[in-house]
Amino acid sequence: MIRIIKVHPLDNVVIPVQDAPAGTEVATGVKTAQDIPQGHKIALKDLSKGDEVIRYGVALGNLVQDIPAGGHIDENMLELPHPPDLDQMAWGKPAAEEPFPEDLPATFEGYELPGSRFAGTRNILGIMTSVQCVAGVMNLALEKIRGELLPRYPNVDDVTVLNHNYGCGCSIDAPDAVIPIRTLKNLLRNPNFGGEVMVVALGCEKLTLDMLLEPNENNPENVIVLQEVNGLRAMIDAIFIMAEKKMRKLNERRRVTLPLERLCIGVQCGGSDSFSGITANPATGYASDLLVRAGGTVLFPEVTEVRDGVQFISERCESRELSRKLAGEMKWYDAYLERGGADLSANPSPGNKAGGISNIMEKTMGAIAKAGSVPIKGILSAGEQVEHLNKKGLMFAVTPASDFHCGTLLLASGTTVQVFTTGRGTPYGLAAAPVIKLSSRTELKNLWEDIIDIDAGTIAEGKESINQVGERLFKMIVSTASGRHKPFAEMYRLYNDLCIFDPAPIT
Amino acid sequence: MIRIIKVHPLDNVVIPVQDAPAGTEVATGVKTAQDIPQGHKIALKDLSKGDEVIRYGVALGNLVQDIPAGGHIDENMLELPHPPDLDQMAWGKPAAEEPFPEDLPATFEGYELPGSRFAGTRNILGIMTSVQCVAGVMNLALEKIRGELLPRYPNVDDVTVLNHNYGCGCSIDAPDAVIPIRTLKNLLRNPNFGGEVMVVALGCEKLTLDMLLEPNENNPENVIVLQEVNGLRAMIDAIFIMAEKKMRKLNERRRVTLPLERLCIGVQCGGSDSFSGITANPATGYASDLLVRAGGTVLFPEVTEVRDGVQFISERCESRELSRKLAGEMKWYDAYLERGGADLSANPSPGNKAGGISNIMEKTMGAIAKAGSVPIKGILSAGEQVEHLNKKGLMFAVTPASDFHCGTLLLASGTTVQVFTTGRGTPYGLAAAPVIKLSSRTELKNLWEDIIDIDAGTIAEGKESINQVGERLFKMIVSTASGRHKPFAEMYRLYNDLCIFDPAPIT
Repeated sequence: MIRIIKVHPLDNVVIPVQDAPAGTEVATGVKTAQDIPQGHKIALKDLSKGDEVIRYGVALGNLVQDIPAGGHIDENMLELPHPPDLDQMAWGKPAAEEPFPEDLPATFEGYELPGSRFAGTRNILGIMTSVQCVAGVMNLALEKIRGELLPRYPNVDDVTVLNHNYGCGCSIDAPDAVIPIRTLKNLLRNPNFGGEVMVVALGCEKLTLDMLLEPNENNPENVIVLQEVNGLRAMIDAIFIMAEKKMRKLNERRRVTLPLERLCIGVQCGGSDSFSGITANPATGYASDLLVRAGGTVLFPEVTEVRDGVQFISERCESRELSRKLAGEMKWYDAYLERGGADLSANPSPGNKAGGISNIMEKTMGAIAKAGSVPIKGILSAGEQVEHLNKKGLMFAVTPASDFHCGTLLLASGTTVQVFTTGRGTPYGLAAAPVIKLSSRTELKNLWEDIIDIDAGTIAEGKESINQVGERLFKMIVSTASGRHKPFAEMYRLYNDLCIFDPAPIT
Repeated sequence: MIRIIKVHPLDNVVIPVQDAPAGTEVATGVKTAQDIPQGHKIALKDLSKGDEVIRYGVALGNLVQDIPAGGHIDENMLELPHPPDLDQMAWGKPAAEEPFPEDLPATFEGYELPGSRFAGTRNILGIMTSVQCVAGVMNLALEKIRGELLPRYPNVDDVTVLNHNYGCGCSIDAPDAVIPIRTLKNLLRNPNFGGEVMVVALGCEKLTLDMLLEPNENNPENVIVLQEVNGLRAMIDAIFIMAEKKMRKLNERRRVTLPLERLCIGVQCGGSDSFSGITANPATGYASDLLVRAGGTVLFPEVTEVRDGVQFISERCESRELSRKLAGEMKWYDAYLERGGADLSANPSPGNKAGGISNIMEKTMGAIAKAGSVPIKGILSAGEQVEHLNKKGLMFAVTPASDFHCGTLLLASGTTVQVFTTGRGTPYGLAAAPVIKLSSRTELKNLWEDIIDIDAGTIAEGKESINQVGERLFKMIVSTASGRHKPFAEMYRLYNDLCIFDPAPIT
């Protein structure tokens, strides 16, 4: 007996939880006309060329051919619906106000950061680099620091070098250079780095220290300029000595009990399949709603994932001003893609399509599910600090969908725990913040037992509700933020590289 | 007594080798009007607004103000000359034919590569990744392979993972995506990797395996797809096992004596100062000429460095067809920069300007000096394999000037030794090929004793000629290529990260 899922009462398609052989009954009197892979769409009734295919209660597109009841609808059969007019989008749609459940934790154990509304979830020395030229030296220094210093400072969780591909050979004065510069400036201020500023520069790079640091930070207590240091061994020694001073201070820090309004998390998806939108993503949305109701802040990102359903984000914006900022950011991104000749049909990726996601509208509705149901309180430009918005709650963060460009921007914005949902499977990890990974299917959890933290596939199999998985995730977010739980990526030190989003040309 | 350098008989400026206090005599009857930093230009006679400033025998630009004899000319005082018409550039300028000196080595000890005109200088296992998502897993696997396998295979020099920021979240169908895709495809074929193909993929990325591999390479002997592997520990084991098979084969290889026509090197500069163009770069040019006369191949790169003097490259092209390919590449790069709003005055970098380089024309003439005097036999598009050109000799490689974007493209094109000249100082290193670094000044060599391999500052100080330093460099290239010499970057494992040049948008 194959489980069949219909997401919304208006839908005219369903999806099978397992591969459905020809002849499988998917609704009363409707049998599959051919073998249909798991997660792919099956027509519930006879549909004609031009008809809308409805899923999540919205039109994913119009058919380019007739499909009989029980027929398979794939990515080649749908034309995208007309995109919304960005200047005419609705806003201020009311959301149900629900109280935060009394039996769930309303506090966490975090590291306070002087002058910040948000607290850290880890106590990490993050060493910023101002240019890619210093990465080789930093890698040698990091090995020595990890080997010799880290064991001496037991309250310091880790040391990481914020290596990246930016800093020189870039269009530092181009209009879009504001994004990578802001990203790096804010990245070193992530609450998980405890307010300790340490920058290793070269000396002749285009990204000068005044772009990264405030005047009172730009001094020899915080900055090493390699062109002023007497050789490689002396460089490594200088970095080692400064790192030890910073670690000594970090080592004095202690976790304290804090309300959840001091927590800011990010919710991402990557390698999605057609289950993502009905299992892992809505469960993440439920956890996100819980965190926001407890006073917390959640950033949900990925412009290219949501672009074709952006009207469903705009309508949740709490003010006209926010809807306009959202529209402006979409126009900027559209122009950026267009001038580079990007083919938007390249999203969804081949893996998404193989997983049953036909087009970007279908991916979008699944992706937006991560954002739960609460109103949107802020729109963050790429790499903008949430600290600066003077808002809490749910925010849309302008980022590419590219997983690590997105993750790096969220860290710059100030997230200290990352939730990552995946259908196809992505071994995603970050050195700067713990990452909790959810699988959209139980098969993936079974395959990747030591990578996936939470199996949301139980929802598809009817073993748990969205709310139950969402509550499990919420509790894991709080215990992870409090340092009581280490997700697999952190446990095994599975750390991907930072990717800086630089929309300006390389020179 | 301060040493003063005039590069070309036509020049109307000179530069001081040390800081020149006011009153320093720079020519008969000409004294500095103010304190002038080392490497900065000093007028030899009274110059008026609109006059050309001549250095390297060419006009660097026109003065925007009057300058008295002995006055300081900085970057604010020059307007660039009119750029050449790309469609009307000369070509086929004759070059002096000189024989290869009999007392210099005409062979090296390299690793032959079946089916290739070029040989390796190192015997390295290079593990390619098809997407940034796998980097975290690869870093864990690499640690285990380096620790446990490398010591067992003494003829294998090293293992490196070709981690990069490309593969998904990119505009894979955009016209410019051809560059990063070609780069990665060719990178894994660098002769230093001995023809062993090993790729770790995720499974759902946009950069599919057929874009990286030939059909006969794309099989389980060479490829691991993480989404098909049962968890993190199994992934690391699978990578470890495949790496061992490849290393066992690499371990059987032996160096053989080969003519220098089997060698392909790259010559780069980074962090230039105004000495670069009169010491380290012309010495590199002399070594390059020697290698070409011995039958070898030299790639000289960096579009944005040479753009404003591109007519001086075109005139050395051996055919009209090459000059046209060069013009086409310049037009492409111009359009790329323009659509991103890049400000070309951002090159030279602040460090270059502080070092006395006023504008890109001055930097260009200094940069072109690395290319010696022989005719240009080929123009390589970004990441194109030199193997495909069926040419040997001097080639211009289309790359950004950004040091590691450039270095990565040169490795993709097939360089197996890299020469890097620097004035300000850049601790440049690559895991895939040994890097020989030259300083333009003795001060830098004194400061960075264990980073700089050759001091070309002796030329400015009158202790050695350009040819003498060039000959030293040539000998070091040959002994490095033969594995008899390890430059500092290799000795200390100073390895910077690869930077993939992706001119298409991030999605």
